[in-house]
Amino acid sequence: MEKREFLYEGKAKKVWTTDDPSVYVVEYKNSLTAFNALKKDSIEGKGRLNNLISSVLFEHLGKKGVPTHFISRIDDLQQLVRKVTIIPIEVVVRNITTGTLCKRLGVEEGKVLPRPLVELYLKDDALGDPIITEDHALLFGWSTQEQLNKIKEITLKVNSLLSEYFLGLGIILVDFKLEFGTDTEDNLLLADEISPDTCRFWDRDTKNRLDKDRFRKDLGDVLGAYEEIWRRVSSAEAL
Amino acid sequence: MEKREFLYEGKAKKVWTTDDPSVYVVEYKNSLTAFNALKKDSIEGKGRLNNLISSVLFEHLGKKGVPTHFISRIDDLQQLVRKVTIIPIEVVVRNITTGTLCKRLGVEEGKVLPRPLVELYLKDDALGDPIITEDHALLFGWSTQEQLNKIKEITLKVNSLLSEYFLGLGIILVDFKLEFGTDTEDNLLLADEISPDTCRFWDRDTKNRLDKDRFRKDLGDVLGAYEEIWRRVSSAEAL
Repeated sequence: MEKREFLYEGKAKKVWTTDDPSVYVVEYKNSLTAFNALKKDSIEGKGRLNNLISSVLFEHLGKKGVPTHFISRIDDLQQLVRKVTIIPIEVVVRNITTGTLCKRLGVEEGKVLPRPLVELYLKDDALGDPIITEDHALLFGWSTQEQLNKIKEITLKVNSLLSEYFLGLGIILVDFKLEFGTDTEDNLLLADEISPDTCRFWDRDTKNRLDKDRFRKDLGDVLGAYEEIWRRVSSAEAL
Repeated sequence: MEKREFLYEGKAKKVWTTDDPSVYVVEYKNSLTAFNALKKDSIEGKGRLNNLISSVLFEHLGKKGVPTHFISRIDDLQQLVRKVTIIPIEVVVRNITTGTLCKRLGVEEGKVLPRPLVELYLKDDALGDPIITEDHALLFGWSTQEQLNKIKEITLKVNSLLSEYFLGLGIILVDFKLEFGTDTEDNLLLADEISPDTCRFWDRDTKNRLDKDRFRKDLGDVLGAYEEIWRRVSSAEAL
């Protein structure tokens, strides 16, 4: 597979075409953003860790039957992925209340929900990624009912697979964000990344934050937390 | 029925108990608020018009089988209503896109929706009445699934009854807000008010705004618009 044309640069990744029109190269960047990019930084080594972690998680999910865009990891920073047209909806799953949910709705922090809460947000930086309902998505053409049904089904499956996976590593999967896209044959695939940038991970015993909340809340040692996630994920893979 | 103890004062109404513990007196105020009460004014005569309009609309809906809190109009400013415990959810129905919907989601103004859009907002001034999904309402105990099902059913019925009613008066019902409560016997009742404060009314021919948008957007002659709604509503009643 040959890397060809540079396509675009997002907040956390760069994308290139390849000689296969259905395949892209994604490069993970060191930049970190929060609060709709109002807070920015760059942390040497972060891109590599997210690439490593995300690759392992996509592979794990793929083996369990989840359709994903992931093909293979190329090197420390790059992955081969299927070309997808991203559905402009960020899907958030919450197992424990925290973050914007609590701020927005005034609900208690750290409450274990009786069942996972799935939320949809319109992927639109200029609007600050507003929360939407299924009806908004359908009425304004951001997805079809069939896509939403599959998205919810896959999302809950991913939540249950990853919650179990991380619990085995002594980590509570608090919440996370997923994105989906359709490939050139209109298959719905899990896309984007799954990493400490897009998940909240709490150490089961110490409740230490092992994710981007260390950056959002200035808790210090952001890279150390990402390294700790990679240490546990890679040790599980070695078994 | 004897008016007894003053209970509380809201942004647009005052409430008293009566000698019947299941019945309250509601008095409509002249005060107008918008943008979560950041913009305030008082317009002599507004309370009376809203009381008159709301009474007629509740009576109309009651006759068509919609369960409401309305018992009867007492005088220019007051109504007798069933005592309800308000469900802390504002239900908004939109037939045409405008207002916060367009601002929040970046969608086109004035688009006729292919079907009515029902939105739920948490009734919480301190939080700015944030939009919620059914799952939020269920998981945080703001309503039950049974209540939500009834609320949606009644809301769509009210929308279709009122859209038809107003079209007969040369008025397009663009969108409106409903509130629901449970009475002392746990019946779900349509509550609050239905007036130019809570609905967007556009003249069918001129597209003139005949509602609180005249106040929100400083379009002038707020009272004249409310009077025009009452003129058409009362002429329909006289038939």
